Amino acid sequence: MKARRKASKPWGGRFAQATNPLVESYTASIQFDRRLYRYDIQGSVVHARMLAKCGLLAKAEADKIATGLHEIVGEIERGEFRFDPSSEDIHMAIEGRLIEKVGEAGAKLHTGRSRNDQVVLDLRLYLREEIGLVRRLVAGLQRALIGQAESHLDLIMPGYTHLQRAQPVLLAHHLMAYVEMLERDRARLTDALVRVDVMPLGSGALSGVGLPIDRRFVARALQFRSLSANSLDAVSDRDFVIESLAAFALLMAHLSRLAEEIVLWASSEFGFIELPDAFATGSSMMPQKKNPDVAELTRAKTGRVFGALVALLTAVKGLPLSYNRDLQEDKEPLFDSVETVKAALSAMAPLVGGLAFHRDRMRKAAQDGFLNATDMADYLVLKGVPFRQAHEIVGRVVRRCVSKRCRIEELSLKELQTRFSGLFDQDVFAYIAVDACVDRRRATGGTARATVKRAIGAAKTRLRSG
Amino acid sequence: MKARRKASKPWGGRFAQATNPLVESYTASIQFDRRLYRYDIQGSVVHARMLAKCGLLAKAEADKIATGLHEIVGEIERGEFRFDPSSEDIHMAIEGRLIEKVGEAGAKLHTGRSRNDQVVLDLRLYLREEIGLVRRLVAGLQRALIGQAESHLDLIMPGYTHLQRAQPVLLAHHLMAYVEMLERDRARLTDALVRVDVMPLGSGALSGVGLPIDRRFVARALQFRSLSANSLDAVSDRDFVIESLAAFALLMAHLSRLAEEIVLWASSEFGFIELPDAFATGSSMMPQKKNPDVAELTRAKTGRVFGALVALLTAVKGLPLSYNRDLQEDKEPLFDSVETVKAALSAMAPLVGGLAFHRDRMRKAAQDGFLNATDMADYLVLKGVPFRQAHEIVGRVVRRCVSKRCRIEELSLKELQTRFSGLFDQDVFAYIAVDACVDRRRATGGTARATVKRAIGAAKTRLRSG
Amino acid sequence: MKARRKASKPWGGRFAQATNPLVESYTASIQFDRRLYRYDIQGSVVHARMLAKCGLLAKAEADKIATGLHEIVGEIERGEFRFDPSSEDIHMAIEGRLIEKVGEAGAKLHTGRSRNDQVVLDLRLYLREEIGLVRRLVAGLQRALIGQAESHLDLIMPGYTHLQRAQPVLLAHHLMAYVEMLERDRARLTDALVRVDVMPLGSGALSGVGLPIDRRFVARALQFRSLSANSLDAVSDRDFVIESLAAFALLMAHLSRLAEEIVLWASSEFGFIELPDAFATGSSMMPQKKNPDVAELTRAKTGRVFGALVALLTAVKGLPLSYNRDLQEDKEPLFDSVETVKAALSAMAPLVGGLAFHRDRMRKAAQDGFLNATDMADYLVLKGVPFRQAHEIVGRVVRRCVSKRCRIEELSLKELQTRFSGLFDQDVFAYIAVDACVDRRRATGGTARATVKRAIGAAKTRLRSG
Amino acid sequence: MKARRKASKPWGGRFAQATNPLVESYTASIQFDRRLYRYDIQGSVVHARMLAKCGLLAKAEADKIATGLHEIVGEIERGEFRFDPSSEDIHMAIEGRLIEKVGEAGAKLHTGRSRNDQVVLDLRLYLREEIGLVRRLVAGLQRALIGQAESHLDLIMPGYTHLQRAQPVLLAHHLMAYVEMLERDRARLTDALVRVDVMPLGSGALSGVGLPIDRRFVARALQFRSLSANSLDAVSDRDFVIESLAAFALLMAHLSRLAEEIVLWASSEFGFIELPDAFATGSSMMPQKKNPDVAELTRAKTGRVFGALVALLTAVKGLPLSYNRDLQEDKEPLFDSVETVKAALSAMAPLVGGLAFHRDRMRKAAQDGFLNATDMADYLVLKGVPFRQAHEIVGRVVRRCVSKRCRIEELSLKELQTRFSGLFDQDVFAYIAVDACVDRRRATGGTARATVKRAIGAAKTRLRSG
Repeated sequence: MKARRKASKPWGGRFAQATNPLVESYTASIQFDRRLYRYDIQGSVVHARMLAKCGLLAKAEADKIATGLHEIVGEIERGEFRFDPSSEDIHMAIEGRLIEKVGEAGAKLHTGRSRNDQVVLDLRLYLREEIGLVRRLVAGLQRALIGQAESHLDLIMPGYTHLQRAQPVLLAHHLMAYVEMLERDRARLTDALVRVDVMPLGSGALSGVGLPIDRRFVARALQFRSLSANSLDAVSDRDFVIESLAAFALLMAHLSRLAEEIVLWASSEFGFIELPDAFATGSSMMPQKKNPDVAELTRAKTGRVFGALVALLTAVKGLPLSYNRDLQEDKEPLFDSVETVKAALSAMAPLVGGLAFHRDRMRKAAQDGFLNATDMADYLVLKGVPFRQAHEIVGRVVRRCVSKRCRIEELSLKELQTRFSGLFDQDVFAYIAVDACVDRRRATGGTARATVKRAIGAAKTRLRSG
Repeated sequence: MKARRKASKPWGGRFAQATNPLVESYTASIQFDRRLYRYDIQGSVVHARMLAKCGLLAKAEADKIATGLHEIVGEIERGEFRFDPSSEDIHMAIEGRLIEKVGEAGAKLHTGRSRNDQVVLDLRLYLREEIGLVRRLVAGLQRALIGQAESHLDLIMPGYTHLQRAQPVLLAHHLMAYVEMLERDRARLTDALVRVDVMPLGSGALSGVGLPIDRRFVARALQFRSLSANSLDAVSDRDFVIESLAAFALLMAHLSRLAEEIVLWASSEFGFIELPDAFATGSSMMPQKKNPDVAELTRAKTGRVFGALVALLTAVKGLPLSYNRDLQEDKEPLFDSVETVKAALSAMAPLVGGLAFHRDRMRKAAQDGFLNATDMADYLVLKGVPFRQAHEIVGRVVRRCVSKRCRIEELSLKELQTRFSGLFDQDVFAYIAVDACVDRRRATGGTARATVKRAIGAAKTRLRSG
Repeated sequence: MKARRKASKPWGGRFAQATNPLVESYTASIQFDRRLYRYDIQGSVVHARMLAKCGLLAKAEADKIATGLHEIVGEIERGEFRFDPSSEDIHMAIEGRLIEKVGEAGAKLHTGRSRNDQVVLDLRLYLREEIGLVRRLVAGLQRALIGQAESHLDLIMPGYTHLQRAQPVLLAHHLMAYVEMLERDRARLTDALVRVDVMPLGSGALSGVGLPIDRRFVARALQFRSLSANSLDAVSDRDFVIESLAAFALLMAHLSRLAEEIVLWASSEFGFIELPDAFATGSSMMPQKKNPDVAELTRAKTGRVFGALVALLTAVKGLPLSYNRDLQEDKEPLFDSVETVKAALSAMAPLVGGLAFHRDRMRKAAQDGFLNATDMADYLVLKGVPFRQAHEIVGRVVRRCVSKRCRIEELSLKELQTRFSGLFDQDVFAYIAVDACVDRRRATGGTARATVKRAIGAAKTRLRSG
Repeated sequence: MKARRKASKPWGGRFAQATNPLVESYTASIQFDRRLYRYDIQGSVVHARMLAKCGLLAKAEADKIATGLHEIVGEIERGEFRFDPSSEDIHMAIEGRLIEKVGEAGAKLHTGRSRNDQVVLDLRLYLREEIGLVRRLVAGLQRALIGQAESHLDLIMPGYTHLQRAQPVLLAHHLMAYVEMLERDRARLTDALVRVDVMPLGSGALSGVGLPIDRRFVARALQFRSLSANSLDAVSDRDFVIESLAAFALLMAHLSRLAEEIVLWASSEFGFIELPDAFATGSSMMPQKKNPDVAELTRAKTGRVFGALVALLTAVKGLPLSYNRDLQEDKEPLFDSVETVKAALSAMAPLVGGLAFHRDRMRKAAQDGFLNATDMADYLVLKGVPFRQAHEIVGRVVRRCVSKRCRIEELSLKELQTRFSGLFDQDVFAYIAVDACVDRRRATGGTARATVKRAIGAAKTRLRSG
């Protein structure tokens, strides 16, 4: 039996002893790289066609290979394919099955190719597709945010710094902040894609291929933007994985911030939102609980993607050229991160879309806490008071209100004039009304209704253009 | 159908709407926490006995529960148990099945308990056991190292600093360095265990339990060293996981160093070791290759455990009290790290045990590179030359040898005396012989044969005492 | 000038060319390791005494060295010492100055010692002292928390899970949760100390020392608990740094949780605390702001210590034995983390001590949100209803209250009996009173007043015993 | 004195109590953000001009401000400026000094601006400049690599996988692999720059500015590519820092790989390179040592930048909108990483440029180890043998050579034909000559001389175009 196993190794020739089963299971990747099967077969079909075109394979052999591989796709998708752990990896499992099916032609498929360039090809095809999916899911969350923003264009809430109420803002403005963050995520993924979308086949094991192959043919057939430029680099480069993980990490950081706010807003203390029952869960012990689990898990899963990034950076640290088996450890963190990011986006979009806002509590909160103090200072500035002095004066006004337990607008004009500054006039009250404070911030990026509307329009246009 | 699903939730009472299936799959943990089933049932059996003892359950009910739970263990281990994703987690899946089996008694099991304290219990039982296993595997690797050390007590090799040959050492001394590192790992795990081995049940959801329960009974029955001292802390504490991950991370860092040396030593350039065929793998393209994959993968898997540590640290950062759903993200990084550490130790021990050392190349390497220069300086020191001057003199001797392409001992005494120092005498050559250099380092921790033998003896004694 | 610089290198003899100034500044550590001067000199004095004892130095020489070194301490502390970047590191700077001062005796100090073991000695002395200081500062924060707990033994607030109000707890119980976390931090530091407190001198550059030295003498004089057991390990071991950083990381994670709660509680929405003006800061633009900056910075600085841990783990990953220059990168992350942890503890303790609690808001919050629902279920359990059914019944009670916008205790007994369960009786209202809920949780770890008082007592006892 | 300090706070008005000195030093950033002074002043001058243009400041006041600020630049650069820790940060320190110098006009500078948007402006100006510098230093290292590649276009060495000799490659090809990696780094930095180069002023504290300002004027004057689109996002966005750190982390990972190879190649075992004396250092104890410290430190400093990335990701995790003081912790990790990256590149470029290659050892190494085995298989493939069989045959050839301790080309044709395959013919020896193996790999990315020459040409063109 050992002999049988040994014989099945594609590199058995040089070895006198069979691989230890422990080593086999330690080094096998088939339990996780099987998910690359479609990309592996897609690449192999094109590779075979290229070999035929270059005269390294008969046309009929290439056809046999293509037919055999397509059958294997079917076997895998129908659950009929036996993934044998002693196959090491998905590449060998498929090639082994192909040889069973089509014989000698199958044994020629690996001509001019190494697993070192093959696995990079598969991974690049996979990641190219997944980045596309992630970008679309990001857009989906952006649409949910924009939808809520558009439905609440008049709803004023407190803007916070240091989690202290600071200035009144539109809820729509607040939600659009996340749309902006996510837009950067999409841009980063687009940039990363340029470095993912590179065709590595033809790099061989490390030094290129000594047979007359046609790399451009393969790149065109697989719709790659460019060819890898150095074979040693190509087989040992996992930058495209790490860069994607870094982009995912930032994306998760953004989701963690949004999640944190959902948790805060759903608390009794804030009371800004009501989670739909379908997006909340209860407690096994406490009958009254309604918990924002989706947001909490998203917040926590951020760590998972950070961890994956650290795992990969650690793995490549200090690796000499070129391919080292260490690089096999790229897949699980990547796969897990892709799934995590997709799941988080898929869960957060309908959650955001389903939030019900308690308009009265939000608006009321915007009226407590002296959120108009900055505008009161600006009022004085427009009357010629240097800002630093205006700030000091209004600071004292606020202290007065704190001790009187009143709002600024509840002080009398007389008190304002005599105690704080003769420049205050009747129009100060209109000037510091919360709605006026909001609508005054009209410059690009500000919270004025008209400005936010423009920002929403711009965001929708960007989304339409992809 | 929705109604059915809703009804099955242990917290359905308060909710008007069924959980969204997306949310169900996003928040479910059963796909990974099922591995806790043994610990969960172990805890539940004891919990039921305690409830009976305290009069909160009839004796007969507790018996029914115990019987039912033991049957469920059987069902799970025979693969007959249906893990329904809508069960949320292993706790609910088991409780649900128990109620199916034993009816009302099962519905009483959750008396005085919350999933919040239950899951911590399970995790502590799991980790307590796994730390024990890891410690034993560490000891196994130590034994493999000690075995090689004992078999090569006379083999001198170059000791390196900066990967430059520095001073001659015994291979045994070199191997024993790893035994020391691993001993610290065992000690750290032992220390961590004290903080793992704490009984949390009775903390309830967060504030303790309002029924007359007996926590000490549970702790004794499950052989815990201590009781958790604050319920809010107990349900939200994952320190024991993080501390264990930190200990695993350092352990993996040690394995990465050992792995690096195996990779180096197996290279043609070093040529110090031959990997057994059974512990090496070949190349799909290059017929001549014999690769140290086990060592490479171990080196890379280090990143995985570092990443898990970062994931968990990130997850708990900034979490308010007490339990938050974020804490559910503790399991996968922990499980994956435990499996990784165990697999790496299991693979490295026989690899180390199977290494064949090229004695001649190692010894020869120890003779090239002026490894005796320090001792030559010491020779002068013993004749009264201040060390700084002795170092300078020997530095010039080395430069001379570099330009003459010879070893120090190939210079004539005359040249030494006239060109460098009149204090050199005939006995210098014996003094700087490689074996003499090794055997001179007799103080504890040094590389002298006798000292290393003592170190081996001490290590074996420690291993025997557990 | 080049010649002069070359001459000043302790290893110039072997080199024909002077070091490039760029390299000098890139490799120099004196700008940060100068803070080790006290430990370096302490170690050198003892080393010299040991050399004298062993006959490797004349008694008079050792005395000269000791005197010279003590003078150098003075020069450094008076700011008169010239730290020359071309000195590489603090060890060479001090030795160089010593030779200037005492001549040949100074040139003998490095006998039987390498910078490789010397720097480890210094770092261990430093860290041993700093861990002591950190432990004391942790105790200080514990005392501040205990102080507040004792002053508020009657104050009931909502306990939270998922940031949703869950069950009523004592503020004192909540604060004591942090005391428990910090107690684990102290224990971890104590454990780490055992592995810090190891004497490495005598390991030489890597293989031990070839001269007849007395390691035990040095260990005793410097009050170390044990001797390093393997010289190769001793010069390349930074586990003690990494383990300490891991302990600091967890400590910071705890502070980040406390900080998060202070930020939350200081918000208008929670309104549970008032920060003392002296521990809050304002805004340059918004006159009304009062921000919890100390808590926010502490929360953020957590990342800094996590980062330091990652930095060190990365640095040692895959390093072959023995000393590599990579290890020089241990110092800055360690120094920065020690300073960060000390500063955070120093700032948080008086902040916690100075918090004023808004008792009415806290208590009122504990009365809204059905925090007594679990106890209502327990009430039914005590009447024989299986917990799962009791939970379901009370879940429906809560839904009823949500739709009626009332508290549970505002439902009539009649409604309870007819709509929900005939087992409800008049005594249910006393049973679910918030104070009763709290006081019922008497088992160890629970929130009952008496239990918390005991916990406080136990914590104070632990603190007294160090 | 307290009063004085209080008065000096820009936000003192609202506060009754002075800031605690401990809090002052804990929260102060001036000790590290002072390095932003140039950017701060550059921004303030433009801000003042904009205020004047918009009628919010008299032209004469703006001129006074500009003059005052330019004087302050001088004071700082001449070391005359007193950085008072109680100034909190560089912004307040400069504004305070400006008010001292020009009085009321200075007190107007903060009109329509908050520190929240100001600090982001400064940081973006800083990072925009530093990314430019880093890109130039990367190009410098690329030039050093290309220079060595061009000087060694004929030098064949072993290409490695798994640190086992695999196939022969040109040293030039090997070096160009790093040029490719670094080219991706430059591209990533260029992409990051787009998201750095965004003008945030006008975002105010969080909600925009209520005065009629002109953001576009500021953007044009400071040559920014775009305006920030959402004020809440703008003041709390540190993505541009994190993205840059991620790019730096990958860059350092590349340097760590190059450094690892320099360490390996400089070892006695490889013996491929000689470090220039000016770029190596010695040992305090071992007179013969010549160590590759620059490479080692670079390898280790990788961890430092990884750590900085983790620190920042951790800091932003879960932060609610908008500005939180946590964000102040962005600066030190960023500054440290920028300095680290610049220092590493500055040290590595001349080190690489100064390497002397031992041509004979490298070429000889390429001839040992059956590096031509793949080509021997390809030879059979071209004769119609399926690759899998060809691989198996050559695997057996290699085993034969291992046991005979000879090279493949030392087997007789007869033995090849009779023992292994009748398809071997005399031309096989020419086919598997090392030079032929190299020159056969002509497709893009391969190691053939002509191909590598083209790659060098392409790289030089890219560098010229910036």
